[in-house]
Amino acid sequence: MMDSRIVGILGGGQLGRMLVEAAHRLNLQTVILDAPKSSAKQINALHAHIDGSFSEPKAIQKLAEECDVLTVEIEHVDTKVLEELEASYKVEVQPSWKTIRTVQDKYVQKYHLASKGVATAESLSVESNTPVHLEDIGRKLGYPYMLKARTLAYDGRGNYVVSGPESISDALGALKDRPLYAEKWASFSKELAVMVVRRMDGVCISYPTVETVHEENICKLVYAPAAVSGVIQEKARKLAEKAVESLWGAGVFGVEMFLLEDGELLINELAPRPHNSGHYTIEACPTSQYEAHLRAILGLPLHPHSTSLATPSTHAIMLNLLGPSYDTVARKALEVKGATVHLYGKGQAKRARKMGHKLSIKSNHLLMQRTQTR
Amino acid sequence: MMDSRIVGILGGGQLGRMLVEAAHRLNLQTVILDAPKSSAKQINALHAHIDGSFSEPKAIQKLAEECDVLTVEIEHVDTKVLEELEASYKVEVQPSWKTIRTVQDKYVQKYHLASKGVATAESLSVESNTPVHLEDIGRKLGYPYMLKARTLAYDGRGNYVVSGPESISDALGALKDRPLYAEKWASFSKELAVMVVRRMDGVCISYPTVETVHEENICKLVYAPAAVSGVIQEKARKLAEKAVESLWGAGVFGVEMFLLEDGELLINELAPRPHNSGHYTIEACPTSQYEAHLRAILGLPLHPHSTSLATPSTHAIMLNLLGPSYDTVARKALEVKGATVHLYGKGQAKRARKMGHKLSIKSNHLLMQRTQTR
Repeated sequence: MMDSRIVGILGGGQLGRMLVEAAHRLNLQTVILDAPKSSAKQINALHAHIDGSFSEPKAIQKLAEECDVLTVEIEHVDTKVLEELEASYKVEVQPSWKTIRTVQDKYVQKYHLASKGVATAESLSVESNTPVHLEDIGRKLGYPYMLKARTLAYDGRGNYVVSGPESISDALGALKDRPLYAEKWASFSKELAVMVVRRMDGVCISYPTVETVHEENICKLVYAPAAVSGVIQEKARKLAEKAVESLWGAGVFGVEMFLLEDGELLINELAPRPHNSGHYTIEACPTSQYEAHLRAILGLPLHPHSTSLATPSTHAIMLNLLGPSYDTVARKALEVKGATVHLYGKGQAKRARKMGHKLSIKSNHLLMQRTQTR
Repeated sequence: MMDSRIVGILGGGQLGRMLVEAAHRLNLQTVILDAPKSSAKQINALHAHIDGSFSEPKAIQKLAEECDVLTVEIEHVDTKVLEELEASYKVEVQPSWKTIRTVQDKYVQKYHLASKGVATAESLSVESNTPVHLEDIGRKLGYPYMLKARTLAYDGRGNYVVSGPESISDALGALKDRPLYAEKWASFSKELAVMVVRRMDGVCISYPTVETVHEENICKLVYAPAAVSGVIQEKARKLAEKAVESLWGAGVFGVEMFLLEDGELLINELAPRPHNSGHYTIEACPTSQYEAHLRAILGLPLHPHSTSLATPSTHAIMLNLLGPSYDTVARKALEVKGATVHLYGKGQAKRARKMGHKLSIKSNHLLMQRTQTR
């Protein structure tokens, strides 16, 4: 066996599914905790999986009983039980519960990064969800500012742009009862992202800097590499590595950044797991983010070149297939030169739901020139 | 759904497993017929699979009841029941049972190819397994000649080199009771192979010409592209396409050829399914042979560029991981630049058993020059 330890994955969505696909290639055994028939479970008949939620302590305990190492494909998990499990020495948790706990509360994440000297947007804790307090914050951060849910937020759900004092009551209406924090507005020219692999020993290696394009707060497109100068690409990777070095445990991390108009970089947020902005690594890099995650959490070797683009002229464009139209786009993609399609086996194609993605690889010098000069 | 038809696969070994992997990426549903826990079944929890043998009519009928389209990952199947099933219009068989029946008896295969004007080694039917008859054949073909089992032969099992009249009794001892044929000795400088995709309408497109290196009759290495001139690469593809065009139904075909010392090409044998010499397509080509097979049998589109190498400078080397040492080699490969590992989830690593493969991708002009001048 490559490694006989069984890996338990909290969450069985598309990221879990692609983790399982990578695990199969290395004969690594995985067990999934999520709802019955979730994406990841569909492609693993080696084990009985656990039905339940990754936020239920009992379900997590049940998963732990079947596994040697626990990892996550989503950060909205119960970390208290992960802490107890790790302390019991019954199971390893990678990355550490400390990392997951720090990251899953976005204000704590920001505070942590700032305390480690990692550039990130100025953030203020919202102590009480009241107009008076939010006006006070407006005076400190200026308008517009971002009001964000600290926890359980994804794909922009939980974010509100406070454009001026007059929009505060609407903001509170939209986000009422949730723990909030406020972020200074970042006037960015591009959004960049870097996937970072953190080894057991804390050493980080990173994939190339990519550009992400969001539509209605959901990642729509990823360009790899980002069409920015080599200096900025390097700066973004260093910043992402610095952020991830400040955390605990092994695995891959998705680090999203803002490139400001003056060339400065700020971390927007990071995720302690494979990330949408790293799907392109399946085709475009020697080792995918999914396999890199498994190798990292199991302490298997990873050649430093594994995270670079396959060739100096490799260019990849990832398009998320969202909502009901996904199938039409996917079928059309079969006719496109250099395109590959990944569908996730999800049931109902609700609006904006991530149903799959399309990857287009191009590798020629003409394209490279075009991209760099646009 | 990309396509709601269910694909039944006769055989659940590594080729079936990689077919299932490709199917998952397109949300295509597969059901496997093979022994319990076979490689392919391990990675598909979407359906209950059929336990049994792909040579048992009843098991094949049971599979057919669950499926809309039947295909094979091995040609040693019962074709009588496939013929009946196709005639009943209950299920489609791709490629056609006629193709599988023609190919699975190697003498019939050779006879068919020769009758269609496809260059192949001169072959004679062995009418009786007697020394007298084999001596007669020796006078017609010259020595050495190859004595081969017509059916159920793979990885060289079923082949015997008849070096002279004195070795005839040993040859008969080794292959007694099997249906045999004799093949004129081909004095080759290299073995080449081409994967061909045959569309429903009979149009063929092919992957690049590769070189295969066998050790003890088992494929050990594949170099893509083959280090032969462009003229020979093209000639090999045309010959392979011509061979596959002469058959019936859709799917991918592995065509193995001898490159003789005088530059002539002869077909050695072909397989009506994905093939060991096409594993490299997973990483090295826009669409893998596995996905191409599925697209072909379901009539899904395939861009003509899909079967070319990812870039003009892409070079791939596939190494089969055989027998008990596979795990050590696989682990070591994790440390190698540009290498990927595919393990098949097989149980006992018996000698010479195909347990996995390693693929190394290189893409640079220096390597290309080196390969072409060696």
